[in-house]
Amino acid sequence: MFKFTLKNTDGNARTGEYSTPHGSFETPNFMACGTKGGVKTLEMRDVEELGAEIILANTYHLTLRPGAEQVEEFGGLHKWIGWDKPLLTDSGGFQVFSLSERRKIDDNGVEFHSHKNGDKHYFTPEKAIQIQEKLGTDIIMAFDECAPGDCDHKYAKKAMERTHNWALRCKKEHEKLQKIRVKNGQAEQALFPIIQGVIYDDLREESAKFMANLDLPGIAIGGLSVGESKEDMYRILDVVRPHLPKDKIHYLMGVGSPEDLVEGVARGIDLFDCVLPTRLARHGAFWTPIGRHNIKNKKFEQQLTPLQKNCSCSTCKTTTISYIRHLHMESEITALRLLTIHNLHFLLDLMRTIRKHIKEGTFDAFHKSFTSQFLNSES
Amino acid sequence: MFKFTLKNTDGNARTGEYSTPHGSFETPNFMACGTKGGVKTLEMRDVEELGAEIILANTYHLTLRPGAEQVEEFGGLHKWIGWDKPLLTDSGGFQVFSLSERRKIDDNGVEFHSHKNGDKHYFTPEKAIQIQEKLGTDIIMAFDECAPGDCDHKYAKKAMERTHNWALRCKKEHEKLQKIRVKNGQAEQALFPIIQGVIYDDLREESAKFMANLDLPGIAIGGLSVGESKEDMYRILDVVRPHLPKDKIHYLMGVGSPEDLVEGVARGIDLFDCVLPTRLARHGAFWTPIGRHNIKNKKFEQQLTPLQKNCSCSTCKTTTISYIRHLHMESEITALRLLTIHNLHFLLDLMRTIRKHIKEGTFDAFHKSFTSQFLNSES
Repeated sequence: MFKFTLKNTDGNARTGEYSTPHGSFETPNFMACGTKGGVKTLEMRDVEELGAEIILANTYHLTLRPGAEQVEEFGGLHKWIGWDKPLLTDSGGFQVFSLSERRKIDDNGVEFHSHKNGDKHYFTPEKAIQIQEKLGTDIIMAFDECAPGDCDHKYAKKAMERTHNWALRCKKEHEKLQKIRVKNGQAEQALFPIIQGVIYDDLREESAKFMANLDLPGIAIGGLSVGESKEDMYRILDVVRPHLPKDKIHYLMGVGSPEDLVEGVARGIDLFDCVLPTRLARHGAFWTPIGRHNIKNKKFEQQLTPLQKNCSCSTCKTTTISYIRHLHMESEITALRLLTIHNLHFLLDLMRTIRKHIKEGTFDAFHKSFTSQFLNSES
Repeated sequence: MFKFTLKNTDGNARTGEYSTPHGSFETPNFMACGTKGGVKTLEMRDVEELGAEIILANTYHLTLRPGAEQVEEFGGLHKWIGWDKPLLTDSGGFQVFSLSERRKIDDNGVEFHSHKNGDKHYFTPEKAIQIQEKLGTDIIMAFDECAPGDCDHKYAKKAMERTHNWALRCKKEHEKLQKIRVKNGQAEQALFPIIQGVIYDDLREESAKFMANLDLPGIAIGGLSVGESKEDMYRILDVVRPHLPKDKIHYLMGVGSPEDLVEGVARGIDLFDCVLPTRLARHGAFWTPIGRHNIKNKKFEQQLTPLQKNCSCSTCKTTTISYIRHLHMESEITALRLLTIHNLHFLLDLMRTIRKHIKEGTFDAFHKSFTSQFLNSES
């Protein structure tokens, strides 16, 4: 049911195809975040129109509201939110450690309080798998402890070991529940483990080996892009890469920016997700091949051109910078939507371009030219 | 260039077609409000997809930002906002009297301060026409004094007389500017005068006769739906109707609710505008044939049906009440968009149904059945 087919390689960059019960998607690819069951400012038909092949939703948010049992009664997350293609849920690990309040963590699990209303919740590896089973998504993630990017080696090691132990428990619970799903004629789910270890090379290497050994149908790298330097992030990807199974899909969680997607692909990453395209839009920011810009900039007031020359997104085909800026300055919600569409299109189109270059064996040249153009701009 | 063709009548209800330099629209019809140059939460392509044939923009808001000269430099309002169909601007009269601060009014015009930043502005009838000429819209409105719905007869009479005087000045300025437009090869604009007189029958009758006498290519009724009772509004429409030229389009400004549209059509009205479908959406409210509902209602939490059974809007075709409610409760902007689309579709579809019934001579029966269903509901 779940199958990763490696197609082309170009240096460490790869193209492939991943198949799920809800269809397949090409890699490298980027997942828009449907945090609470919706991609911010967009309808699902917009996300489809953008050519997104897989999106992500957040277990933490959906557990708080409407709750996993509720989603299960609604017929599963796909049906409820109206998304019929591949769908991935994170385990809630990252949000439990970044959003929730008054956390108490031990080897069994985490007690935390909702950042929304203070309600007490208790997550264990088993619970995280049970919740994601109820959500019924295609790819589900193991429950991990996402240690702070600046924690010391001692704590990082402890969190990693806990994450390893939890991954074993997740795998066991997952196998149990999948048997029931198969018996009930329900679509199977794939479980991906998450490599941790903060910015410590020895820990990351140990964690990569451990998770690869679990022999699950995909493998993820978590705990990056959480405040560490870009140098650290890129180095960790280099440290981890030799230990990632070549025949499995490699998912870098919570990344990211256009330059990080290109750097990630150059280091063998196949799948990404990030809130950046939607979050930046809400702050008036947008990307073009020459960098990041802000619509509030006075110089855009009278600019009657699209956000990006020759861009094929619906925003660029139908509106001008001047008009979007006016809507943004007037606090019109439509501006957020127009910028979100452009930013998401920018990343999805970047991934299409990357795939094309890998197929043609020109990824390295593209990598250099994209990065120098994108990072050497001022705006 | 501007032509109203009366097609069918059924009692006092009429169907017709109004042609403008940007195409024609059928009547009765409803205009969505593109207040600041955008219909709230929507893109222009959404408004077009909804089947809107004409929309309205606000002179007051566009004068504050980006300014009429700026819009003129941008190539006119149609081009700037990306709307190629008929477009109407109000004169700013209503907003000057309802939104602005520290007004000083005399027979020459109104000094007021922007509700946005306190900037001082001065509107005269001539200025209002000059601004709308720069905006380049198809139908422009005379500058009027919109007296409060609860003012006494003495003040209402004074405001009406001022409005009459201003209408004459608007007409004169308009004729002057149109000659220049024609000479420059620019599309002509139609000026509509506005009947005032608060809720006083004698004043409304006098104002209707005066405005009809101006022999302009349309006529509007202003100062209703501003806090007076529905009885008063409907009675005033009955008082005014015999004096409206039958071969001109009749526009009731700022109305409104589904029941008021039906009552207005029954009294010979051809065109309406109102912020209600977009504003209600922002408060979580939506219409169905059995009345007004609020998405926050707990009973909708698990309802896996569209907002309205058999509704053909994109929201109802792709989402459920339960999902929209979840997005709304989570403060997701997408909920506002989904409800706005449904509410606007509801009114535009109501107008299509009304036109069909008038053509078939069954408007009276429809009027009765719609009203009894719509107003006798509880939700």
